[in-house]
Amino acid sequence: MNDYKLRQEFVFSIYPQEVDGAKRLRMTSLCNYILNTAGYAAQENGFGSLEMIERGMTWVLSRLAIEMIELPEQYEDIIIETWVEEYGRIVTSRHFKILDKTRRVLGYASSLWAMMNLTTRRPINLQAMPEYNRFATGVANEIAPAGKIKSVGGEPRKTHTVRYSDVDFNGHANSVKYLEWMLDSIDADKLYTRSIKRLELNYVHEAMLGDDIDIYSDEASDSYTFLLKKGDQEICKGKIYGI
Amino acid sequence: MNDYKLRQEFVFSIYPQEVDGAKRLRMTSLCNYILNTAGYAAQENGFGSLEMIERGMTWVLSRLAIEMIELPEQYEDIIIETWVEEYGRIVTSRHFKILDKTRRVLGYASSLWAMMNLTTRRPINLQAMPEYNRFATGVANEIAPAGKIKSVGGEPRKTHTVRYSDVDFNGHANSVKYLEWMLDSIDADKLYTRSIKRLELNYVHEAMLGDDIDIYSDEASDSYTFLLKKGDQEICKGKIYGI
Repeated sequence: MNDYKLRQEFVFSIYPQEVDGAKRLRMTSLCNYILNTAGYAAQENGFGSLEMIERGMTWVLSRLAIEMIELPEQYEDIIIETWVEEYGRIVTSRHFKILDKTRRVLGYASSLWAMMNLTTRRPINLQAMPEYNRFATGVANEIAPAGKIKSVGGEPRKTHTVRYSDVDFNGHANSVKYLEWMLDSIDADKLYTRSIKRLELNYVHEAMLGDDIDIYSDEASDSYTFLLKKGDQEICKGKIYGI
Repeated sequence: MNDYKLRQEFVFSIYPQEVDGAKRLRMTSLCNYILNTAGYAAQENGFGSLEMIERGMTWVLSRLAIEMIELPEQYEDIIIETWVEEYGRIVTSRHFKILDKTRRVLGYASSLWAMMNLTTRRPINLQAMPEYNRFATGVANEIAPAGKIKSVGGEPRKTHTVRYSDVDFNGHANSVKYLEWMLDSIDADKLYTRSIKRLELNYVHEAMLGDDIDIYSDEASDSYTFLLKKGDQEICKGKIYGI
């Protein structure tokens, strides 16, 4: 018998503050659920961030892709299923299927994670911990993982100063906040009248309390490309289709 | 037998994004839990906001007070107990007791609500709905309710433009966001090194998407008083003790 689980699921209730002015779940709230699912799933299998931090290392989100068919509304319950596809040398891929309470599929997400040494701030070769190879199922997701997003030039659209409410227990801006700053920089009417079909995020560097983050964006007919920079340093890139 | 409950409780899990850089539950996250408790409790007893909106009216938060003895950390579960004390003509008072999973008391909260007619935007006499009188238990809370907070003068400390991520399903800024803007306007180190003992909020008017909200504050040795204004109109006042 295995004492670990290759496929796990968690249930979340959608609270009123998690829907937007169009009464649909905000993509940022969905991202929180997805990252909390990853956190709980890792914790159940013995490699959660609290355990890893005690061992001098931490999981770092590198890329995230989400595709939604339908967005739930407030007071609905959603189920998020998760499994690991690959566990390589530098990165491991974790996938998600988002379901309503009748198990109808609402969407999918795909994430890529690296492990960082907290002292050197350098990546750790995951094969130094071969005991986690058993979690790699080889099962792909229905959606393509996030690709490498091109940088955007021009002048910044806005500047956001990283605030108390942006910062996590580790002193860095929460991964979801980068997406929040991107979405807050565009016309809200667009977000209310159109639907995000797919979003991709590339995490490059972390933003810290007090940092001034310049938000660049490039608008195409069916998508936005975003770049967050701190001075000359790229922090995070995003590509959002459907708006 | 009664088919309604005079005292209800709900359990919440504290997610990593809900703690701050000092690894303690953010007061804004706690406020969300308290307001969600009020929402679920009202819904269970047949007077939730969704039902009331269908009847052309909505609950409006008028005042909130919170006193915390201890703040929980990430991945902890908390229990919030709630009951209605009074159901008068203009306002009804709802109280909260916040417990850890061993039922040790972590703190208390006290709220005051009015009912607004969605067409006239005017308060409704609650005694026009006498069927809710049965929910008034007459049981007071351990803490004093929020008093009337004095206005603050001087120059604004900051201006916040209400963004997509601030706005609720009803198109107004979420009640918790006013507190977020207040806390984000002061030195984060103070929030990390000291502990909020008590906070009081007075809600005066609602802020809408795109509004420029000026944040005024007055610092005393053991407290901050805040005023949020849109031009000359007072929007929200806050008093925070312990920082």
